[in-house]
Amino acid sequence: VGPDGGKVAVLGAGSWGTTVAALLALDAHREVVLWARSPSHATAISEARCNDRYLPNTPLPHNLAVTADIGGAVAGAGVVVVAVPARWVREVLVLAARGTAPTAVIVNLAKGFEPGTLCTMSEVCEEVLPGRPVAVLTGPNLAPDIAAGLPAAAVVACREEPVALVLQQLFSFSHFRVYTNDDVVGCEVAGGVKNVLALAAGMADGLEAGDNARAALVTRGLAELSRLGVAMGGHAWTFAGLAGLGDVVLSCTSRRSRNWAVGFRLAQGEVLAAVLASTHQVAEGVGSAPSVVALAARYGVVTPICEQVAAVVAGRRAAADAVAALLERERGHERAGLPTG
Amino acid sequence: VGPDGGKVAVLGAGSWGTTVAALLALDAHREVVLWARSPSHATAISEARCNDRYLPNTPLPHNLAVTADIGGAVAGAGVVVVAVPARWVREVLVLAARGTAPTAVIVNLAKGFEPGTLCTMSEVCEEVLPGRPVAVLTGPNLAPDIAAGLPAAAVVACREEPVALVLQQLFSFSHFRVYTNDDVVGCEVAGGVKNVLALAAGMADGLEAGDNARAALVTRGLAELSRLGVAMGGHAWTFAGLAGLGDVVLSCTSRRSRNWAVGFRLAQGEVLAAVLASTHQVAEGVGSAPSVVALAARYGVVTPICEQVAAVVAGRRAAADAVAALLERERGHERAGLPTG
Repeated sequence: VGPDGGKVAVLGAGSWGTTVAALLALDAHREVVLWARSPSHATAISEARCNDRYLPNTPLPHNLAVTADIGGAVAGAGVVVVAVPARWVREVLVLAARGTAPTAVIVNLAKGFEPGTLCTMSEVCEEVLPGRPVAVLTGPNLAPDIAAGLPAAAVVACREEPVALVLQQLFSFSHFRVYTNDDVVGCEVAGGVKNVLALAAGMADGLEAGDNARAALVTRGLAELSRLGVAMGGHAWTFAGLAGLGDVVLSCTSRRSRNWAVGFRLAQGEVLAAVLASTHQVAEGVGSAPSVVALAARYGVVTPICEQVAAVVAGRRAAADAVAALLERERGHERAGLPTG
Repeated sequence: VGPDGGKVAVLGAGSWGTTVAALLALDAHREVVLWARSPSHATAISEARCNDRYLPNTPLPHNLAVTADIGGAVAGAGVVVVAVPARWVREVLVLAARGTAPTAVIVNLAKGFEPGTLCTMSEVCEEVLPGRPVAVLTGPNLAPDIAAGLPAAAVVACREEPVALVLQQLFSFSHFRVYTNDDVVGCEVAGGVKNVLALAAGMADGLEAGDNARAALVTRGLAELSRLGVAMGGHAWTFAGLAGLGDVVLSCTSRRSRNWAVGFRLAQGEVLAAVLASTHQVAEGVGSAPSVVALAARYGVVTPICEQVAAVVAGRRAAADAVAALLERERGHERAGLPTG
């Protein structure tokens, strides 16, 4: 893998996959191929030179090709970026496996856990594409703002430092600052849990609990995320960084966060199925909530916020009751809730 | 000091002082005296049973008395709450010293450092009122929402645990959850620095840098706050709690944060003096910025965000240049910026 030139495949033509593909193609010497599952979607993007469905008003560079042929997309690619929802990652990687070079680096963008197995995305990558280095690109990154050239910072995590440094070079542009990290599992837990916290923050805002309550919820939420992350082997400082704190703050306070918006609408009395049916964007927190609760049980960690969110998305509790329960927690010494790792 | 009954004096009839006085007076058996510096302001509040200037639309309980006589206010009070801007704390405590019981507990609400001496507020309290236990009440607490009965959480920090527990009882109500902490200096540094970070966040928002940039700024800002706080003797976990993360998130993301609003207006081209003259509220970050930079120099800590803010409030740099400099910082390994303590 070299930082300049070389082919990169991006699997998944949603908002973030398209943005990252367009970002990489800002280097005019680089060949970038964006794979869309649907042939008609691939054709539409290719002809319009714009992904009108997921990233409107963003012209795509000419060195960005679009295809529905996954074998062709990954053939010869030194880096394969996975940008589909967490629940589809295994299936897409299986489709890509035969054509993916044994030396290719896999970079996951999905923020969530595999339903049922509770695998992190890197575990899925390692099972389906054994032997390839696996990395995670994460952080507080709303796609449309990055596509529009606004400044942002992100983390690329990989256990192999030379690979992390190459990927840092690959993804860095003047408006997109990339920091390295070796804590893959920590970054993955952060990315999975923060969407659940965003649902909770949206619910609190939908119930007009106020900015103070939301700030307290973010604080307790990051402590909860950190407890689980440390128990699963992550570093405490990862959760204080862009992948943890940064993404939690963004997802819980931006009105353009998908998960926040779903929580907000649930709190206003809409039914989950109707909320989800009204958008073609995926709110990963809905699927992640039960996975986080199951992981917390496996690791013996207390996750009261995620438990309330899981009860709401399962239809077992009203959002108002969940928020009330969270805001009435026992008081005590502040340190009691923090991870020690 | 007993949790029920007993007289409490609140010195300072601004928005937060009035809110805390009204909160304490929710216990109908408690005698609460609110001191206003200006006799006409005290009379106006007392006659209207409302602080129209700083906390409009909030009727005050009948067991809350208002006076401009500071000696009468503190006489016989078991708890003296200090709720004036940081720069006035010493002067007000000197006025209160003769009448304050030698056994009274001093609870500081001011978030900032003494200009010139760089003393924390607890250091000022200990100098002027030696021998009394000193505590800090802090956290993500916008006054109007608490006055309106919306839920919030806060921290009461005191080195003497029995005092902290008594104060926890005193300040706790069903909608206001109080956690204890023994890290007074950590809470004070957090309260002082967060206002400077809020100015930076307001500037970034005023320049329309976007939600991603603001989330990154909050992340780097909390790391900066934590570095200084740890160097000054605070605990790292304090900065992950309500006094640190919680208050930083609130101040940097709420459009009703005073310091955020000042930063926002500076970024839109207004002159600092005009911004400050247009409001009777104090934005503590303006005074804290040079103090934080001086403390950072004393403790050998790097505080790039606070340095940029200090340059802007001193008129040495345009907000746009400051924000641009912050968003173009060197990339590296994420852990490099985090405190080790």
